[in-house]
Amino acid sequence: MKVEIVTIGNELLNGDLADTNTARLATFLRARGIAVAAAQTVPDVEGAIVGALRLAGERAQLVLVSGGMGPTEDDLTMEAAALVAGRPLVEDAGTLARLRARFEARGYPFTPNNARQARAPEGAAVLENPVGTAPCVRLEAGGATYFFFPGVPHELARLADDYLGPWLAERAGARPYRSVKLKTFGKTESQVATMLEALPRDPRLHVAYRAHFPEIQVSFHATEPDAAAADALLAAARDGAREALGDIVFTEDPAVELAEAVGQALVRAGRTLAAAESCTGGLVGKLCTDVAGSSAWYLEGAITYSNAAKSRQLGVPEALIAAHGAVSEEVARAMAEGMRERSGADYALAITGIAGPSGGTPDKPVGTIHFALAGPEGTSHVHRRLPFDRERNRVVSAWFALDMVRRRLLG
Amino acid sequence: MKVEIVTIGNELLNGDLADTNTARLATFLRARGIAVAAAQTVPDVEGAIVGALRLAGERAQLVLVSGGMGPTEDDLTMEAAALVAGRPLVEDAGTLARLRARFEARGYPFTPNNARQARAPEGAAVLENPVGTAPCVRLEAGGATYFFFPGVPHELARLADDYLGPWLAERAGARPYRSVKLKTFGKTESQVATMLEALPRDPRLHVAYRAHFPEIQVSFHATEPDAAAADALLAAARDGAREALGDIVFTEDPAVELAEAVGQALVRAGRTLAAAESCTGGLVGKLCTDVAGSSAWYLEGAITYSNAAKSRQLGVPEALIAAHGAVSEEVARAMAEGMRERSGADYALAITGIAGPSGGTPDKPVGTIHFALAGPEGTSHVHRRLPFDRERNRVVSAWFALDMVRRRLLG
Repeated sequence: MKVEIVTIGNELLNGDLADTNTARLATFLRARGIAVAAAQTVPDVEGAIVGALRLAGERAQLVLVSGGMGPTEDDLTMEAAALVAGRPLVEDAGTLARLRARFEARGYPFTPNNARQARAPEGAAVLENPVGTAPCVRLEAGGATYFFFPGVPHELARLADDYLGPWLAERAGARPYRSVKLKTFGKTESQVATMLEALPRDPRLHVAYRAHFPEIQVSFHATEPDAAAADALLAAARDGAREALGDIVFTEDPAVELAEAVGQALVRAGRTLAAAESCTGGLVGKLCTDVAGSSAWYLEGAITYSNAAKSRQLGVPEALIAAHGAVSEEVARAMAEGMRERSGADYALAITGIAGPSGGTPDKPVGTIHFALAGPEGTSHVHRRLPFDRERNRVVSAWFALDMVRRRLLG
Repeated sequence: MKVEIVTIGNELLNGDLADTNTARLATFLRARGIAVAAAQTVPDVEGAIVGALRLAGERAQLVLVSGGMGPTEDDLTMEAAALVAGRPLVEDAGTLARLRARFEARGYPFTPNNARQARAPEGAAVLENPVGTAPCVRLEAGGATYFFFPGVPHELARLADDYLGPWLAERAGARPYRSVKLKTFGKTESQVATMLEALPRDPRLHVAYRAHFPEIQVSFHATEPDAAAADALLAAARDGAREALGDIVFTEDPAVELAEAVGQALVRAGRTLAAAESCTGGLVGKLCTDVAGSSAWYLEGAITYSNAAKSRQLGVPEALIAAHGAVSEEVARAMAEGMRERSGADYALAITGIAGPSGGTPDKPVGTIHFALAGPEGTSHVHRRLPFDRERNRVVSAWFALDMVRRRLLG
């Protein structure tokens, strides 16, 4: 089944709002094995809506429409739908009664504008919205089926569950979607692609790369309709890719972020973590504690932005900072070891560097970051010269530090 | 000038990613007085891209395209552009040399894949990307001008500034767009709207609300073409709104985030800040150190996730934690006072709470957060019961804490 999406609203085309309903509907469909062929966004202009609906209906069998279902004069989706269907707009008595009752129950006045939300093209199914006023409307026109949803995300989500899901379940062709995803950190998109170049390719698999800064994701999507055959293809592709990519793969679970993968590895090893952060300013702690249940493995952190804090909180000798500078291997090692000793954590990270935009020197340019990891096996150190802006230098630094823990635990 | 947008990428149609580039480009155009007529999203399929580019080029004079400019074989935008232009793809020598130099400088191997990013349709302008590898490509075809941007948002933003802005400035019809924005924290969107209800309305101003969690933004947009008259209208609207909204407005600068507004207030007062974080796990530190130059006012932080860390790092008596629990007014106050004393900062924040999803009790349900702020004037405390999920509870907690500092400095 070919599916297109049409989103409607001036706010989507003037920069006020980024469209999230397309992704929401796409996720809904993907879970049912259905791909979206294209999406259009048009303003609250009748002619533009008519054009988009017609084009989508010519190309697809199912058209999902969001927005323009409100009670005001600039909500024109039903007018456009009536033109596309070549049928008049009629008031749905059941919907009108429900709207009146809803307003009465809340003590709101029912204005003529509100009655607009009871209108739909003649012959359309007007489906009750239990969480809002605009109904869901299902319309057959020109050989396509249109579902019209209000643009409010939680209403759209509820109405898709209530009406689109069952409608799809009755149709043939909807099958669970099959794909696998590997998340990697440490190589660029093209390096990852090059590492996978030599793998055998099966025409029933589609490989996709996605740079989701700072990780690179590799996905394999099966176009093979037989579920067991698709699973076998995907398992073989995943195993081949894992071998080719080696330890840059930090998870095969699309829902797991790097910090959670590190936490899982720590829990498996029965180990705990603390982090002393200078230039990342708490970002490692934030990423760790984003993970529910992180108290099982992340004990504490020190955000030692000033030199005084490095000495007082971590016991880094002032003389060491004076001799080598706060951004140095020596200080990174001392921070990690001080953090480990004081916290009692099995592993302690330290990050000290110059995130930018200012603070660089010829010897230590912006982007110079020193990382240390102290653990039962000893303390390791690396430094990097990162090429990004402040924000990205900080994100990559936090990820790099967490990845040091993951790699240490891999052995 | 009629403008359309085309965004390209499987990830935009399979639910992996919501498209933000359309809104980004629309904001860019709106600032120049230009509206977007329509937007399309298509997958990484050559025929679909060609169809979308042709349709947009037939309807509009300017077509802005994002995505499909990467180095891998599923990046097909340039192939599609060449078909639309009816001209072959050729390698741009300058771009190729820049790409090679960039890879050499970073010690990355230059693979054949990378050379793909130097290709563009014959006759197109291939414009250097100073912040990434995919160039910006400007192409005249079929009476329309196409700008092709990489899909990476910060690269697109930079290339729009560097190339699209000057190109538009040379064309007639682009005029500076005038608006003002107030950013607020602490009230819901409908509360903010109600606070502004009684203000006089001018038909030449459009007011818009935007929930940009956890802040609510209020914007006034002038449709008055005379610049001086528009500025006067906007100034009056801003002053009226500021008075009606009072201290929930934390900035009138669209580029300033709450942490930066707090930093500016601290610098004005000649004061410094430290933060002791439990449930926010470093998020306050992260938000503060997101701001370039934050070392002038943010001294340090302690991420005291465990009780032991609260005692050791902040001197919170173990007996106090045992008596009241880690999530309590008493412990929040002790954390803030301990942090202030040890760090020597003028102000010290403390946040301790239950972000969820687990850890709640009947007495202290999920979302219970205690905040304390210690300063030269003494220590204040508040607690809140937040209704969100873990992520949003943490974000609101960090914002609420920072806002306590802002309010304290307002007096």
